[in-house]
Amino acid sequence: MVSFEDVTTAYERIREAVIQTPVMTSLTANRLTNCSIFFKCENFQRIGAFKFRGAYNAISQLSSKERKRGVIAHSSGNHAQAVALAAKMIGIPSTIVMPKNSSPVKIVATKGYGANVVFCEPTVDGREKMVTALMEKHQSVLIHPYDDPRVIAGAGTAALELFNEVGALDSILAPVGGGGLISGTTIASKGFMPTTRVFAVEPEQANDAYKSFTTGKLVPSINPNTIADGLRTSLSERTFSIIRKGVEEIITVSEEEIIEAMQFLWERMKLVVEPSGAVPLAGLFNSKDTFTNQHVGLILSGGNVDLTQFFVHFQKQSLGTEF
Amino acid sequence: MVSFEDVTTAYERIREAVIQTPVMTSLTANRLTNCSIFFKCENFQRIGAFKFRGAYNAISQLSSKERKRGVIAHSSGNHAQAVALAAKMIGIPSTIVMPKNSSPVKIVATKGYGANVVFCEPTVDGREKMVTALMEKHQSVLIHPYDDPRVIAGAGTAALELFNEVGALDSILAPVGGGGLISGTTIASKGFMPTTRVFAVEPEQANDAYKSFTTGKLVPSINPNTIADGLRTSLSERTFSIIRKGVEEIITVSEEEIIEAMQFLWERMKLVVEPSGAVPLAGLFNSKDTFTNQHVGLILSGGNVDLTQFFVHFQKQSLGTEF
Repeated sequence: MVSFEDVTTAYERIREAVIQTPVMTSLTANRLTNCSIFFKCENFQRIGAFKFRGAYNAISQLSSKERKRGVIAHSSGNHAQAVALAAKMIGIPSTIVMPKNSSPVKIVATKGYGANVVFCEPTVDGREKMVTALMEKHQSVLIHPYDDPRVIAGAGTAALELFNEVGALDSILAPVGGGGLISGTTIASKGFMPTTRVFAVEPEQANDAYKSFTTGKLVPSINPNTIADGLRTSLSERTFSIIRKGVEEIITVSEEEIIEAMQFLWERMKLVVEPSGAVPLAGLFNSKDTFTNQHVGLILSGGNVDLTQFFVHFQKQSLGTEF
Repeated sequence: MVSFEDVTTAYERIREAVIQTPVMTSLTANRLTNCSIFFKCENFQRIGAFKFRGAYNAISQLSSKERKRGVIAHSSGNHAQAVALAAKMIGIPSTIVMPKNSSPVKIVATKGYGANVVFCEPTVDGREKMVTALMEKHQSVLIHPYDDPRVIAGAGTAALELFNEVGALDSILAPVGGGGLISGTTIASKGFMPTTRVFAVEPEQANDAYKSFTTGKLVPSINPNTIADGLRTSLSERTFSIIRKGVEEIITVSEEEIIEAMQFLWERMKLVVEPSGAVPLAGLFNSKDTFTNQHVGLILSGGNVDLTQFFVHFQKQSLGTEF
């Protein structure tokens, strides 16, 4: 298991490497929800998401033998960039296995952090075969995106920083996908303040955590179809067990609610937040009664959205036309 | 004229009302420019732009007689919302004259702050007639968007806060439209640190300040065609005189450069910044040699962009499709 001490130790280990992301507030959000919200802005974290915390915490603990062998990870998203940058900062080689249909922006970003990117078929089977083959060949160390105590403890440092800055909170909300962030958040919260209630928020269209939580039995996510691409993964036994023990409730939100919350964050708070990062606010908007008059912490988990098309459109619309 | 003391006094007057906006940094921006940039994020200011500072500073100094008569302003943009909110907070009535073709989002926002919105023909003549008629009828006090010492001093408090937070700067950059922000920035900078060099940045397609500065003669802006909608106004004699005296250079940037800088701010820094607000960074990217190895302050003046279409498109693209 992962303890509060693991989180505080992780924080000591990574604090020089991470960005102490700002905590933002919004009078409009407070008015709309009748509570006082503290947004922990992990969209401003290195690589644009909280994932850097866990990756750095895991990689920085490797032995010198392991470091020589390098690390390997499979991800088409934020974990890829997190492992690539953390490995680069620590000075060891990294290999990232990405599905061959990954977005060009993410491939370029991952390569930009110095990783050796290897493509695989865009299936679980294709990915596992490739990872296994590469691990056998190079003896490299696998950094799992969430099913790893060091990754979970690292993820929990975001909530720890939030508590250190704002003090006691009645409730704290984080998104749930594979469960690394919500597990770390739960451990940090219960350790800092046992009375703080922890809420996980999940897309209705990827509600494996909700099903698992309510049935008491781990249910995997099958072909989840949600815009919140960071939350399509399934819980592991480890994260499920932490969630069952410490999470108050799993709130689910529709795709429309996710986009509405995202639009609020962009338009009113001027924050570029990715769909997965907007999920907790969607949950809060959707369950106002639960949080009335409370001090609420909310982890904005990341801000990586591919805006290429938006700016192409924006440019076309703007140039050469009358205003 | 406006003195440094006017800016420090303005700051004492408005500090409880304004948001002490955060200063952000970006390792990537620093690496790309070979300097150390401190972004003053006025996109996080009330109403989403620095304009609130000047409006509040002006309105809070009105006599009780003037307060009873209320204030009037003409604007289709950020100044409209700034005057509406400042008047509401101070508890006096406001009338905002907006062109009848103003964006619905801005009309709703201005009304939302409690202003009486009156529409006029979308011409200078139509606007002036309407403002004159209303002022005669109600004896209301005009709050000019920039040609007012109180508005200029208020605008200068953004730079003052930046200096208070980060200390000495080699250079500071701000956009120039009517010249209120750059004038306030110049006075704050020269007062805090006489050796700091002040740069105004302006769209090539609205380069009245550049022409005025280089010819020494006030040249008005005629039908400027730039995406940076906050910078289409012309200098006044007052702002021109401050600029001539204190500004080092006026850097002009193309429309493409503005959009490129905006895209950097959104994608890499996760900040929603409007085109006018991205103009100084475009200037910095465009004139790197001028700033090499310097500590540079940069005012991100605002973040009000109408994203309605973007989110309609985003929603259409996302819902009901396979991911």
